Amino acid sequence: MSESRPDSLNALTAEILAFRDARDWKQFHSPRNLAAALSIEAAELQETLLWKSDEQVASGLSDDGQLERISEEVADILIYALLFANAAGIDVSQSIRQKLLKNEAKYPVERAKGSARKYTEFDPE
Amino acid sequence: MSESRPDSLNALTAEILAFRDARDWKQFHSPRNLAAALSIEAAELQETLLWKSDEQVASGLSDDGQLERISEEVADILIYALLFANAAGIDVSQSIRQKLLKNEAKYPVERAKGSARKYTEFDPE
Amino acid sequence: MSESRPDSLNALTAEILAFRDARDWKQFHSPRNLAAALSIEAAELQETLLWKSDEQVASGLSDDGQLERISEEVADILIYALLFANAAGIDVSQSIRQKLLKNEAKYPVERAKGSARKYTEFDPE
Amino acid sequence: MSESRPDSLNALTAEILAFRDARDWKQFHSPRNLAAALSIEAAELQETLLWKSDEQVASGLSDDGQLERISEEVADILIYALLFANAAGIDVSQSIRQKLLKNEAKYPVERAKGSARKYTEFDPE
Repeated sequence: MSESRPDSLNALTAEILAFRDARDWKQFHSPRNLAAALSIEAAELQETLLWKSDEQVASGLSDDGQLERISEEVADILIYALLFANAAGIDVSQSIRQKLLKNEAKYPVERAKGSARKYTEFDPE
Repeated sequence: MSESRPDSLNALTAEILAFRDARDWKQFHSPRNLAAALSIEAAELQETLLWKSDEQVASGLSDDGQLERISEEVADILIYALLFANAAGIDVSQSIRQKLLKNEAKYPVERAKGSARKYTEFDPE
Repeated sequence: MSESRPDSLNALTAEILAFRDARDWKQFHSPRNLAAALSIEAAELQETLLWKSDEQVASGLSDDGQLERISEEVADILIYALLFANAAGIDVSQSIRQKLLKNEAKYPVERAKGSARKYTEFDPE
Repeated sequence: MSESRPDSLNALTAEILAFRDARDWKQFHSPRNLAAALSIEAAELQETLLWKSDEQVASGLSDDGQLERISEEVADILIYALLFANAAGIDVSQSIRQKLLKNEAKYPVERAKGSARKYTEFDPE
């Protein structure tokens, strides 16, 4: 069973759902609420880096206290993303792989290599 | 090896990093940029649900076209979250499990069951 | 002079810039930082409403303490929006009026009345 | 009457409400929806700056096309902020001035000058 894999998404989702169900919180977890919560957690991650230069961020990441706070925000984002996917009936691994395939078509290596341009801004072929 | 598991976070992260490296995009992926990208994708997920009632959202989720669009936004969020975690040196499975433990202490079942209150708003014991 | 008008955007911007300059904070206020700060404050506003039904929000707005907290988040959003506009050389009143004109063309009354559809989803004429 | 001032918040709000009411959109404008819309627009502003260095942003701001796009995002943010404030019964000018007063207490010039630290991180006095 994949549920016993330490880093399997199914296993992690099962642990998150058990936490939710022990508290009877499914009633609050509409897709709209979960998407809002996810957006709020993403902002909290940004806040940990706000007003800092890239150098200050790098030095913060080697400080245990700051890294732990950042880690918790990443965890919150992933928890809400997995809760959202579960509520919406989305298979997360499959959706990531399908998106990578789509991105490969939008950003072919020969055009995208070393460039931060959006595919809509590529020069016409 | 866990890398071969279809839904292992290590396997998915490896596929995402391969996509990034083939395009030489690591140079753009500072933690601040990735956190901004993550926040933008979370907003795009919210936008798919904006102005809709919970009933309209539910009916949208049973429409293949809408579900695919929503799936793609969830995938983008997870891709940037995994890229961020990789850039910051965070072990994602471990951070999720540590956060669940912390949340268990903040939201003990007997106080949190059926309530949407934030732990800071619990009645004094 | 418009600067003395109680609710003039010029007057409010001047007060905000004076606050900033007394603290020598312009050095931190790059457009990217201000846009991130704005996004964070918008999320904090969302957080004041999270997990609540529309009825609970309405009742919160008639509670002085909650209204004050919400008011402060709205103020933070506006302060960063005005700081961003100032840093980017944008005339705020003009940009609002131009956007309303553009929206009038995208959402003509006869097509948009009573509908929450995005203009890209209008039926073909 | 302040309503005739070109940059008065009352005048701008009145124009925005007239646009809304001509389309009968008040029914969609719950505080939660408006706060979500505001957050989405803030993310769209961030997206105009994503992957860019501060130098690239500065050069984008001197390009008419890019400045116009950025201007429109700022306008959208302000439009939703004013709609939210109106729906919540918040006097915007007053809330900005009260927040500045509060920030003056939290960030006294002698402690905050030239520092990007959050007030919670000030050294003890």
